[in-house]
Amino acid sequence: MPEAAFKLEFKVRDYELDLQGIVNNSVYQNYLEHARHEFLLSKNIDFAALHEQHIDLVVSRVEINYKAPLQSQDSFVVKINTEKQGNLRIVFHQIIERIPDGKVIIDATIIGVCLQNGRPVKPEDATGVEWENK
Amino acid sequence: MPEAAFKLEFKVRDYELDLQGIVNNSVYQNYLEHARHEFLLSKNIDFAALHEQHIDLVVSRVEINYKAPLQSQDSFVVKINTEKQGNLRIVFHQIIERIPDGKVIIDATIIGVCLQNGRPVKPEDATGVEWENK
Amino acid sequence: MPEAAFKLEFKVRDYELDLQGIVNNSVYQNYLEHARHEFLLSKNIDFAALHEQHIDLVVSRVEINYKAPLQSQDSFVVKINTEKQGNLRIVFHQIIERIPDGKVIIDATIIGVCLQNGRPVKPEDATGVEWENK
Amino acid sequence: MPEAAFKLEFKVRDYELDLQGIVNNSVYQNYLEHARHEFLLSKNIDFAALHEQHIDLVVSRVEINYKAPLQSQDSFVVKINTEKQGNLRIVFHQIIERIPDGKVIIDATIIGVCLQNGRPVKPEDATGVEWENK
Repeated sequence: MPEAAFKLEFKVRDYELDLQGIVNNSVYQNYLEHARHEFLLSKNIDFAALHEQHIDLVVSRVEINYKAPLQSQDSFVVKINTEKQGNLRIVFHQIIERIPDGKVIIDATIIGVCLQNGRPVKPEDATGVEWENK
Repeated sequence: MPEAAFKLEFKVRDYELDLQGIVNNSVYQNYLEHARHEFLLSKNIDFAALHEQHIDLVVSRVEINYKAPLQSQDSFVVKINTEKQGNLRIVFHQIIERIPDGKVIIDATIIGVCLQNGRPVKPEDATGVEWENK
Repeated sequence: MPEAAFKLEFKVRDYELDLQGIVNNSVYQNYLEHARHEFLLSKNIDFAALHEQHIDLVVSRVEINYKAPLQSQDSFVVKINTEKQGNLRIVFHQIIERIPDGKVIIDATIIGVCLQNGRPVKPEDATGVEWENK
Repeated sequence: MPEAAFKLEFKVRDYELDLQGIVNNSVYQNYLEHARHEFLLSKNIDFAALHEQHIDLVVSRVEINYKAPLQSQDSFVVKINTEKQGNLRIVFHQIIERIPDGKVIIDATIIGVCLQNGRPVKPEDATGVEWENK
């Protein structure tokens, strides 16, 4: 993933580590989610405000390959690219790389859909934003 | 998954819900992990004690399909079956079903490996337990 | 706290442990909250349903004394007693005891208030339940 | 708390919100802990490395006053001052203020002790750092 449509830097927090002294597997989903929400905000798509309008962005599928663990004090970047899949699905390709050595920590593919009053709708219709593949 | 090698029942806790009023995506990994650790304990494999012996059970890949959300007060069961993949990998097939209606909430495939001083070893050698496919 | 108005049993989950191999300090607040919500449900007070009616039960103050840590595989019970403080505050006295030896893990005092459209109201008025001191 | 010995800025992440749409009470302890650990690192005290040497910094008491909630997209600063209490205790005075309006979200008093092989020791002896009151 040489160029990313969006990047966000983080630092590991010690409460995210488990007894193995590494970031717990589930916490990477928190990182990925926060990066996606900041990416969406950068396109004026506000997860919390949409919920108030009965439009919910939800995840229908997650695939994560764990390559190497993050540890106490590690810094890292979450990179995002997206593409459309059919009319209803947005695919988020997300990679976490350690800083400064660029080691790949995880790569992930997340499929998101958009629900209006509980039914799938086209993301463009619900969010007013055109998705390009990148 | 009609018969499961292991089952564990849970109840949703309100702090696990996010602003959409549903269990946050990452929390399902917590449920899946806890069920796996209890399953391993039932086979006398103790995640925490193994770590003290420099043997670490780690996850190398996660696939989760989110079918329906859990909400406040929902009860549910995590079901597990396993199979070996090659010499080094254990595949955990995990399903979460809501109680009492049996609605499938997620299905997941988790690949685990066993590291001794950081290097992959056969799970049998590290844990002293034979794995059957079920 | 010899007699408790409410008790709830839990088992530690490994993802709740931090790199010290003990339950992270913040997680005890999760245990305390879940026990309070189950206690409230036992009195037909439904935290999530009240939120839909714009009535929010919130915590205004927490005091926790950490006496001993919980570790992997520990079971424990959260005990609750309550008393009113003035017209607006409910005080929850909560203790966590390890099972089976009864060792006190934490004792806590949590002050809760009831907000209707953001303003404090008498808990009786909002929930329809009389509080006795116990 | 006009001058703080240490400050750290954060932004709320949506997975930290609960169904009330506000940061869950327990999450503030995560913020406070991360700020303390970064503060300690700024004094060359490394929580994770000390644990490897059988020296554990632990919390013995927490008092938190919740003044106002944080919501989606809020930025905030955690401010820290410390003082010694007797020979064995460090008191952390911590305040969270919303950015940019400075509204006080919580104020907290956290008491920390230092354990070496499970027994309390003087923080100076274990960490090699003199504590001044500020």
